[in-house]
Amino acid sequence: MDFMHVVSVDDALSLISKHVVPVSKVSQWHLEDALGYVLAEDITVKEDLPAFSRSTVDGYALRAHETVGASDALPAFFDIAFSVAMGKVPKRPLNPGEAAEIPTGGMVPEGADAVVMLEHVEVLGNVLNVFRQVAPGENIIQKGEDYAIGSVALRKGTLLGPAQLALLAGLGENMVPIYQKPKLAILSTGDEIVPVTTRPLPLGKVRDMNGYSLSALFKSWGAEVTYAGIIADDFSSYLQKAQTLLETHDGLVLSGASSVGQRDWSFEVLKSLPDSTVLFHGLAIRPGKPTMLGISKSKPILGLPGHPASAMVIAHIIGRELFYSMSGHSFCSPIRVYARITRNIASQSGRTDYVRVRLIDEDGVLWAEPRLGKSGLIYTLAESDGLLRIPEEKEGFLRGEQAEVILYEGCMSRAMRS
Amino acid sequence: MDFMHVVSVDDALSLISKHVVPVSKVSQWHLEDALGYVLAEDITVKEDLPAFSRSTVDGYALRAHETVGASDALPAFFDIAFSVAMGKVPKRPLNPGEAAEIPTGGMVPEGADAVVMLEHVEVLGNVLNVFRQVAPGENIIQKGEDYAIGSVALRKGTLLGPAQLALLAGLGENMVPIYQKPKLAILSTGDEIVPVTTRPLPLGKVRDMNGYSLSALFKSWGAEVTYAGIIADDFSSYLQKAQTLLETHDGLVLSGASSVGQRDWSFEVLKSLPDSTVLFHGLAIRPGKPTMLGISKSKPILGLPGHPASAMVIAHIIGRELFYSMSGHSFCSPIRVYARITRNIASQSGRTDYVRVRLIDEDGVLWAEPRLGKSGLIYTLAESDGLLRIPEEKEGFLRGEQAEVILYEGCMSRAMRS
Repeated sequence: MDFMHVVSVDDALSLISKHVVPVSKVSQWHLEDALGYVLAEDITVKEDLPAFSRSTVDGYALRAHETVGASDALPAFFDIAFSVAMGKVPKRPLNPGEAAEIPTGGMVPEGADAVVMLEHVEVLGNVLNVFRQVAPGENIIQKGEDYAIGSVALRKGTLLGPAQLALLAGLGENMVPIYQKPKLAILSTGDEIVPVTTRPLPLGKVRDMNGYSLSALFKSWGAEVTYAGIIADDFSSYLQKAQTLLETHDGLVLSGASSVGQRDWSFEVLKSLPDSTVLFHGLAIRPGKPTMLGISKSKPILGLPGHPASAMVIAHIIGRELFYSMSGHSFCSPIRVYARITRNIASQSGRTDYVRVRLIDEDGVLWAEPRLGKSGLIYTLAESDGLLRIPEEKEGFLRGEQAEVILYEGCMSRAMRS
Repeated sequence: MDFMHVVSVDDALSLISKHVVPVSKVSQWHLEDALGYVLAEDITVKEDLPAFSRSTVDGYALRAHETVGASDALPAFFDIAFSVAMGKVPKRPLNPGEAAEIPTGGMVPEGADAVVMLEHVEVLGNVLNVFRQVAPGENIIQKGEDYAIGSVALRKGTLLGPAQLALLAGLGENMVPIYQKPKLAILSTGDEIVPVTTRPLPLGKVRDMNGYSLSALFKSWGAEVTYAGIIADDFSSYLQKAQTLLETHDGLVLSGASSVGQRDWSFEVLKSLPDSTVLFHGLAIRPGKPTMLGISKSKPILGLPGHPASAMVIAHIIGRELFYSMSGHSFCSPIRVYARITRNIASQSGRTDYVRVRLIDEDGVLWAEPRLGKSGLIYTLAESDGLLRIPEEKEGFLRGEQAEVILYEGCMSRAMRS
């Protein structure tokens, strides 16, 4: 097999961001069903959040300047004028010399500009002794302080998680514009691959593991996935299947059939699809060299290695970023942390190595324990938390050295990363 | 309001693991639908994985001892006997002096005990020159090396992610025993809370944000969630609603109605539920002191603060562990990483503070940038990646100090943590 366009991981990611376009089918969605979708438009704040100034504590609303100099020895005195009820507008504005009892979240009455906490007062009948000076604005969230009218609360491209849903709820946005989930078809190839239900397993055969792991991974990133089964290494039926799937899906993820010993049917199929371009064919990475990416009529086709563990590593490193580009998801990257490696590990310079590691938290130090083993071993993945990256220019790490670990789950803000 | 059983976070987590029992309704589930479920039984390996010895490279299978001393200058010679086809049993055993071409994943013929990579051979007609000595077992995954027959592949209590699904597929387990998802009802309380569709918002009212954020969080951890809406601060209707929900759910998550300025209806309701026990009432934490946990007829009732940001913080710190205990999910904890704080931050000793932070990756150093603001501000959550913990005994951190950050997403292996 010729790897004609072998690229580095960084080059592969640049090619993806340059050539893969968002699917961009927009729908209006009910807020309660919007978890995990990507926002398709900026959300502009239509009314201040909060809509009125609120107390952040249980206490008494008053005029801050009337507490100047108050102390345990010399308290300031106020008339207790009324109580603010939760969810109600205060009876009347507060006059000088008055204080109003107020619960956490209650509406600060006109005339008041601070709240003194219960801990710092004493109530004597209708008189309030205040033992502490408070500053203007203290213990108050001002009208619009969280999100001000006219500002952009969430930008197009934001992945909607629990906090984003809470914000949209607070703003009264019960229908939200989202991108529909990109539809991916997952197809496993190889003469040795048989369905999971095959038992007993004929000698020489293996069950399709990639169909399950890849479906689950892309689903967890937000794809709508069709598991399209297994296709034997036969060019014409493979091509026909790929074409049919591309008609009803936004992209195709293949695994298998890309090693030297066989015809590289995935590559042949990619080249024969209508309007196809090969972005790369071969990746300077271990594991996962036999990876390819192409585009047919603006739809990406990702070819992954057949080895289950290699296929998953590449799905994490390349597939996830590819999917993010398809989904219009702009502000999030896989989480990168730093951990000390528990043993020496060698690598060949000139390619990036990804070592599956388990994270261990030991008295405040995060360690990464390599789950070593041949790249075909699935246990290295089933028992790890992320991928430790050995950069191209490094020849490995010594025990105790700190290295970057890309976590399998979660994402962190991309905009803020340098 | 009396906080009668104020406990530390550690005590709260111990109480949870002592008193909260798994819901433990077991079903047999199709493997392709099992993502995010928890395994209800150990899975014992019924046949070796792989079921035969496989090559991990493209190359030639041979007897390792026949390559002893081979080098560029002095290659070892072999007769090329046959080719192993993918997915097929080799034609015949290999005789001494012979080599068989083999693809990655191909079945190693009887008689061979190693595979030499293509890069280290030269083919001259029917003769193979081998330029490198290989060790017995080199480039082979042995039968059963990944998972051996009779061993436990996955333990009861394992959360099924993509790698676990791949492993189960490889083992031919297309129906798996799982725990049904615990059913939680989410109820928001408070006279000031109105539905998200309310527009314009009456003065003094706020829309229900917690219903959305808490539903999404517990769903993302694997719960089946009913958003039960909003109930006003009225004891008898509140109690009736809680009772009705508990009949059809495995647990209840309340938010709001637990501050000093109001009657503590959540607590009153909890005490009035049948066979109820209060595990704690008040948490030595900021934000989130007004948190309570009780049990009625073995079903947990978690009471969260009304502030949206505080409610989410407590959901992450307490609610997630509570849910894990309910779901029988034994081997996973929230991911804890270490990052340097970007600015000085003070804290009061005697309670644990959780500061919302954004992670920033700067030339290989992970920084945690506090998203400061009053605890009612939702932006502090919408723009953060995790919670930086200031332990009880600390009075804060100085800029550049390293601190523990609990990530919102993902989980790491619990068994391995010290």
